[in-house]
Amino acid sequence: MFESAELGHEIDKAAFREREPRLREELLDAQFDLREQAKFPVIILVGGVAGAGASEIINLLHEWLDSRFLSTQTFSAPTDEERDRPYLWRFWRVLPPKGRIGIFADSWYTEPLGQALARKISAADLDQRLDQINRFEAMLVNEEALVLKFWFHLSRQGQRQRLAALEKDPRTAWRVTKDDWRQHKRYDRLQELAGHVLRLTNTPWAPWVVVDGSDDRYRMLQVSSVLLGALLRRLADPQDQNFPVAPPMVPNIDQLDVLTALDLTQKRTREDYEAQLAKWQGRLGELVRQDRFRRRALILAFEGQDAAGKGGAIRRVTAALDPRQYQVVPVAAPTEEERAQPYLWRFWRYIPRKGRLTLFDRTWYGRVLVERVEGLCGEADWLRAYAEINDFEHELHQDGVILVKFWLQISQEEQLRRFQEREQVPFKRFKITAEDWRNREKWDLYHQAVCDLVDRTSTGGAPWTLVEAEDKYFARVKILRTICQRLEDAL
Amino acid sequence: MFESAELGHEIDKAAFREREPRLREELLDAQFDLREQAKFPVIILVGGVAGAGASEIINLLHEWLDSRFLSTQTFSAPTDEERDRPYLWRFWRVLPPKGRIGIFADSWYTEPLGQALARKISAADLDQRLDQINRFEAMLVNEEALVLKFWFHLSRQGQRQRLAALEKDPRTAWRVTKDDWRQHKRYDRLQELAGHVLRLTNTPWAPWVVVDGSDDRYRMLQVSSVLLGALLRRLADPQDQNFPVAPPMVPNIDQLDVLTALDLTQKRTREDYEAQLAKWQGRLGELVRQDRFRRRALILAFEGQDAAGKGGAIRRVTAALDPRQYQVVPVAAPTEEERAQPYLWRFWRYIPRKGRLTLFDRTWYGRVLVERVEGLCGEADWLRAYAEINDFEHELHQDGVILVKFWLQISQEEQLRRFQEREQVPFKRFKITAEDWRNREKWDLYHQAVCDLVDRTSTGGAPWTLVEAEDKYFARVKILRTICQRLEDAL
Repeated sequence: MFESAELGHEIDKAAFREREPRLREELLDAQFDLREQAKFPVIILVGGVAGAGASEIINLLHEWLDSRFLSTQTFSAPTDEERDRPYLWRFWRVLPPKGRIGIFADSWYTEPLGQALARKISAADLDQRLDQINRFEAMLVNEEALVLKFWFHLSRQGQRQRLAALEKDPRTAWRVTKDDWRQHKRYDRLQELAGHVLRLTNTPWAPWVVVDGSDDRYRMLQVSSVLLGALLRRLADPQDQNFPVAPPMVPNIDQLDVLTALDLTQKRTREDYEAQLAKWQGRLGELVRQDRFRRRALILAFEGQDAAGKGGAIRRVTAALDPRQYQVVPVAAPTEEERAQPYLWRFWRYIPRKGRLTLFDRTWYGRVLVERVEGLCGEADWLRAYAEINDFEHELHQDGVILVKFWLQISQEEQLRRFQEREQVPFKRFKITAEDWRNREKWDLYHQAVCDLVDRTSTGGAPWTLVEAEDKYFARVKILRTICQRLEDAL
Repeated sequence: MFESAELGHEIDKAAFREREPRLREELLDAQFDLREQAKFPVIILVGGVAGAGASEIINLLHEWLDSRFLSTQTFSAPTDEERDRPYLWRFWRVLPPKGRIGIFADSWYTEPLGQALARKISAADLDQRLDQINRFEAMLVNEEALVLKFWFHLSRQGQRQRLAALEKDPRTAWRVTKDDWRQHKRYDRLQELAGHVLRLTNTPWAPWVVVDGSDDRYRMLQVSSVLLGALLRRLADPQDQNFPVAPPMVPNIDQLDVLTALDLTQKRTREDYEAQLAKWQGRLGELVRQDRFRRRALILAFEGQDAAGKGGAIRRVTAALDPRQYQVVPVAAPTEEERAQPYLWRFWRYIPRKGRLTLFDRTWYGRVLVERVEGLCGEADWLRAYAEINDFEHELHQDGVILVKFWLQISQEEQLRRFQEREQVPFKRFKITAEDWRNREKWDLYHQAVCDLVDRTSTGGAPWTLVEAEDKYFARVKILRTICQRLEDAL
């Protein structure tokens, strides 16, 4: 895998001087077009063996490019903020927006590779992490990112010579650490691991480029020409980044589905409702104050038709909670900042820390509901969203987040009744808009979208609860009881 | 994931009778066209919970289709033949050829799912196996197969009722085993695992279809319509099955490469050669007779230019071996039977059992050498072959096979000298053909293909050894020594 990068490629000074000015100019031009178009972000990962020149390349790019639109991320031990959330959260926070370049000096590869090198995780664990990384990168690329991954290589002997040379020169001696020499001792094991990692993550959408790190000028020319070539190709051709996606899993040949199967006639009397409400609110308050909850977090996701009673249900839940412990996130059209990022970015922002709750009033399922039905995104986009959402929820689940998802279902007649009531009652009038009436016309399309969503995203770790919401009392009690039961099972 | 398949879908007798004759006729027609075209095989996987009707569906398909061109595979405990080879070997042996349908009542999912259910493997191990399965299925589909995966589902209550009903009827009682009831007790765990497995393996190229198993007629109609639809789509549209592939990893910006870096002037005297040859042949003979070798197997792969000396080198190796222990496989154009199978099938046939050796005179690298250079396959085909070959070799390596790969390199002048010698020496004349002269004209294209092959397929478990073969004595000793060293390291 590294054979060609061990041959001692060299570029002499004169040849380099000749090519440098032109290359720098072209790179700057390409970066300018990238900013102007602002259609995709560039994510550059830089890894490799110690001494192979990764940091020189980062310095070079900052020197050659307009560094106002370029950022470099390094990650040392996770902060407590980061430790309290799933592994990928720290990378989501610093993804470059469209039009910018983000260099990752450490990346999502650093920790799994380091742990495998130190034999802290098994081969199977490593492969599981790599599979997660492949899915994450596929999502980034489908969401328009240009992902470039460079691996800087030196032969064992080349590394020894390089580290020795750096140490000898007083200007660079500080750059060689004990860790570097320790890594040199484990050279063979790192090579074997790196070969495995590169093989499994050299995907069509985010391929690796192996760079011979032995000669400064060769390395600089190679990286900058690869970067320039990739930028120019992408700027010239706003290609469709979408890969094929899997179709729905449960083809239906009759009229029976999960929504029509619901019994919407279920009801509670006011008296019964008030007693049950008090009981489950009390229980919920106890549960989230338990010590065991401090190592977990809770996300409540509310979806449902217009006027199905999401807001009222959310208020009945928060009534049981300490306002310092929770956050309610109403989801509407994305902001400008959010539109410059992958779709799921705006939800990652609100992932609660351990011991906390977030309630989402509408959620990441917008992609496979309103965006699908209204044609706000392409078919391939919402089809692949099922897998991306499952991955997202799996990451939360693996990190100990308890995720409870509700779909509130009412009949078409009940919705009409509630719309009319809203129009007549002055303090409810703000709740009904022309858009609500328009959505109503697409009832059947939404119906199908909800059935698909349940089939494809109700998973062991993150099941859907369908709530018969024709009667608000019945719905609210079911919601509170479900939250308590899920918490009891999980804690 | 299984919500829609728990609703108790039903088709009444009259409706079924009405649709049955037409569906059967169309299925038979489609099967006929499949046979006539003989362009792709159909692989149907059938899995699910006990009692959900998988075996009824298999019977139905055998009844409705022409069963001469249909085979059903079940796998119980592996035979000793199978245990002696990598896991996937037992499936490779029974893949249906193009134009035929193969039903897998057990499949590559059975063992990982069973082991995970019995908690014999960790979650990470399971995910690693699933990743291997995804790669295997992608290869099958890229090699033209139509892969359909059905999961038959029943609710917990539905399963209990069904097993009880089967037991009650004397004609079906035998079909309910203790294992089925044992599985029923672990219903929830199986569901959670199945949900996970289906989520991770529901790929665009080989998606799952979840089938409500509660009603016989509904189940039959659903499976047969999905099968018919998929067959008709594929017959009508010989689509390009190729997915995007990763480009070469080490872009080169100068003239230095792994082949030009070789020192072809290295030589041995005849005397030295004979002493060395005797020494390493003796050592090799000892090594493969060691007890530890009985749990391993050895594959020697020989590639090189025409007249580079592969045959001579192979004879020097086999001279050290017991003919009952090894097999030499000369690789030429594929046979008709081999052309009806995925590319790697004809190499899987010759994987040695534990304690044995196979020597390949030319190998699976033909795809990225002659087929690439001569345009015998598409660019996407040879590009994806690197990853498929790496997966293949990784499976061998994981199973304990020691794989030693040689590229024998000579100069263009030396090749000319040997060609001319072959034409002049009567007993060597059969070795030189018009094709050899033609290949020689494509020297530079082969050169590039070899450099790419080394970069992309020299892995930790299966490294390439480049052999300077200008001097035959030097080459043969290097080959024998390398084999001995690799064996010593591995044993």
